[in-house]
Amino acid sequence: LGSGMFVYVRKLLQHMPAYDLALILESSTAKSRPVLWQLIDPDFHGEVLEELNEEVRKGILKSMRPEKLAAVAEGMDIDDLAEVFRTLPDSIYNEVLNSMDSQDRSRVETALSYEEDTAGGMMNTDTITLRPDVTVDVVLRYLRLKGDLPDATDSFYVVDRNNKFIGAVSLAAIVTAKAEAIVSSLINAEVEAVQAELGEQDVAQLFERHDWFSAPVVDDAGHLLGRITIDDVIDIIRENAEHSMMSMAGLDDEADTFAPVIKSTKQRSLWLGVNLITALMAVAVTSMFEGVFQQLAILAVLNSLVPSMGGVAGNQTLTLVIRGMALGHVGDSNARALLSKEVAIGFLNGIIWATLIATVVAIWKQDLMLGGVIAFAMLMNMTAAGLAGVSIPLLLKRLNIDPALAGSVIITTVTDVVGIFAFLGTATLLLT
Amino acid sequence: LGSGMFVYVRKLLQHMPAYDLALILESSTAKSRPVLWQLIDPDFHGEVLEELNEEVRKGILKSMRPEKLAAVAEGMDIDDLAEVFRTLPDSIYNEVLNSMDSQDRSRVETALSYEEDTAGGMMNTDTITLRPDVTVDVVLRYLRLKGDLPDATDSFYVVDRNNKFIGAVSLAAIVTAKAEAIVSSLINAEVEAVQAELGEQDVAQLFERHDWFSAPVVDDAGHLLGRITIDDVIDIIRENAEHSMMSMAGLDDEADTFAPVIKSTKQRSLWLGVNLITALMAVAVTSMFEGVFQQLAILAVLNSLVPSMGGVAGNQTLTLVIRGMALGHVGDSNARALLSKEVAIGFLNGIIWATLIATVVAIWKQDLMLGGVIAFAMLMNMTAAGLAGVSIPLLLKRLNIDPALAGSVIITTVTDVVGIFAFLGTATLLLT
Repeated sequence: LGSGMFVYVRKLLQHMPAYDLALILESSTAKSRPVLWQLIDPDFHGEVLEELNEEVRKGILKSMRPEKLAAVAEGMDIDDLAEVFRTLPDSIYNEVLNSMDSQDRSRVETALSYEEDTAGGMMNTDTITLRPDVTVDVVLRYLRLKGDLPDATDSFYVVDRNNKFIGAVSLAAIVTAKAEAIVSSLINAEVEAVQAELGEQDVAQLFERHDWFSAPVVDDAGHLLGRITIDDVIDIIRENAEHSMMSMAGLDDEADTFAPVIKSTKQRSLWLGVNLITALMAVAVTSMFEGVFQQLAILAVLNSLVPSMGGVAGNQTLTLVIRGMALGHVGDSNARALLSKEVAIGFLNGIIWATLIATVVAIWKQDLMLGGVIAFAMLMNMTAAGLAGVSIPLLLKRLNIDPALAGSVIITTVTDVVGIFAFLGTATLLLT
Repeated sequence: LGSGMFVYVRKLLQHMPAYDLALILESSTAKSRPVLWQLIDPDFHGEVLEELNEEVRKGILKSMRPEKLAAVAEGMDIDDLAEVFRTLPDSIYNEVLNSMDSQDRSRVETALSYEEDTAGGMMNTDTITLRPDVTVDVVLRYLRLKGDLPDATDSFYVVDRNNKFIGAVSLAAIVTAKAEAIVSSLINAEVEAVQAELGEQDVAQLFERHDWFSAPVVDDAGHLLGRITIDDVIDIIRENAEHSMMSMAGLDDEADTFAPVIKSTKQRSLWLGVNLITALMAVAVTSMFEGVFQQLAILAVLNSLVPSMGGVAGNQTLTLVIRGMALGHVGDSNARALLSKEVAIGFLNGIIWATLIATVVAIWKQDLMLGGVIAFAMLMNMTAAGLAGVSIPLLLKRLNIDPALAGSVIITTVTDVVGIFAFLGTATLLLT
């Protein structure tokens, strides 16, 4: 791009599917994205926007003029469109909304009336509805007349005169039933309607529990609003799994790998600041033993060992518990069993590494007592790590704080403080 | 359970769907699982086995007798059955295989002839095939006669006389086409066949790129073997995302939250051992400066600060790069842009925290020079963290080593060594 081969790049981009174009934009630096965007055929802009992740999309939307946006909006799915609308500034929002036709406008407004992370915010409105008393033959003739079904239609929804949801009939049931069978007799009892207010995590769990490919969405009074398809659920499953990993590194808000430097620096500095406070607490504890170092400099050299091992052990347990929580394996009923298991593991691993490190130190420094001190501290700290690794995420969850975000820094503080106290404290008592 | 309320629990378990039963088994301690398993209605054993994660399933299979296993195997999907077979010891394997009917046996054998993590290992064999020259009317009559479609059938596969794959026709196309339309005219050009040897990651990417709900699987010669449905793809997407998080804590093999203590202790001790080596390297570097501590004990107190901040910054960058690699955003073509971005962020954050920590130390210890030394070391180490955070995972990937597994420990070593050298080295030069 730098060398000005615009015509060539434009040609290259023209033959790519939207998914690939989105991938290219996401893999480019923030600076070069607007240029690339201009080179993409405007007819594909809508599809590409649907595929882009939120952060990158926001950047591109900012650079677009409202009238262009309205043109792009026409071809988009309602759920994606609602997502785009949520990130627009108010002035542009109204301008784009007014330029849409009334049917699309009312659909977007319905979707926007629900929170983004609920069934209502995820749904599409392109359902096909049937009356309960018609025959399969009539349905087939109707479908043939229609000539085209919305993408990913695997079920039709049976509603009454007031659009109240009665049940779902699968396309498979329609094609295998006798021509004179009545729709209401083909309803699949396993498909339940999802409430529009239900959170996206719960929606994802319902899909997994029932092996659904799509599900109807209804309002409080049971009126059919739309449907959710499994491709939207996949995004949620992936985002959730990713979220834990990113949170544990303090990167939760940084979904854009190629965000501008200043923005990323700001986002990361918060977490580094929190870590600095933790590190300063360890320093403060160590400074209580400053006098000992003049006598026994070896203690300063060995001081990082015990906290380091405790930190790793604690974060192992934390990671396991966070994953267990996400999968629904860890709750109040089995917290006690998990706690005793992890403390036992911490204790056993403590014995292994305490013995090893004591032997190394005793041989290296020809000091049995020093070996004993470090072994004792190691055992203490590894056990504490198991204890903290289970209890802290459980406690945080009860306080409605995300354990993936706060857990790691708290556990590191615990293992630092316990480790330093156990090592330097015992050393001061026994060796000086 | 402990109180012997078996009858009550058995009743409770009888009314639960397989997904919930699997969740209960996964959330129980390894000891109580065989007891629970006995209490579950044997008719559901197959379904529950399908839902269980691999680790827990292995434990349960060990406790089952071969003839029971064969009975359970009958009702299972081929892909799940193949997965079960892979974990059986050879003797039981043959016994179970021999007790199956010949059609099922040959299906399982086909699935087993492909690697577990390929399209062939993921597929089911319950496809419905059509000839290209029949009319829609004939297809509909055939389906009505059949009376039932395999779960999640959204497409039929058109094959020639030799079972060679020609194309896919969606159920939606069949119901919307005219009765006299010919199958070959309804083929969806967007659906391509997946090669049986293709890796599961690539299969997942194809599904996402094309928004498929199912896809046909063919052998080298283009013969139809089976189909993959999106629910199998979801498992892969989740496992991949989880895998990175678990690997970064050295927990990759520990999929079972409630595994026995001894097993978990063994699994974790490997990672703790690797970390001990890292920690000992930091100790070795520190011990080169042992003499300085007797002069200036404050250096021992502050020694953990710079490595700690560098470690956090390095692991932030590492996490971002690992996620970027998983999403296909980071490759050779943009590695340079990412490297300069992350080094710039490291440098900027280095300046922020160097200034802050220098001010704190200068005021606390009334020592401007000491503040200057720690600021310099902080800036060095944060910049090194950005450099290592990008280059190490890229290097590991080129060497075919999983960056999520090895990256964190290598980066921590780098930031420990650079941090300690920069701080204690500069301090020795300037302050003594």
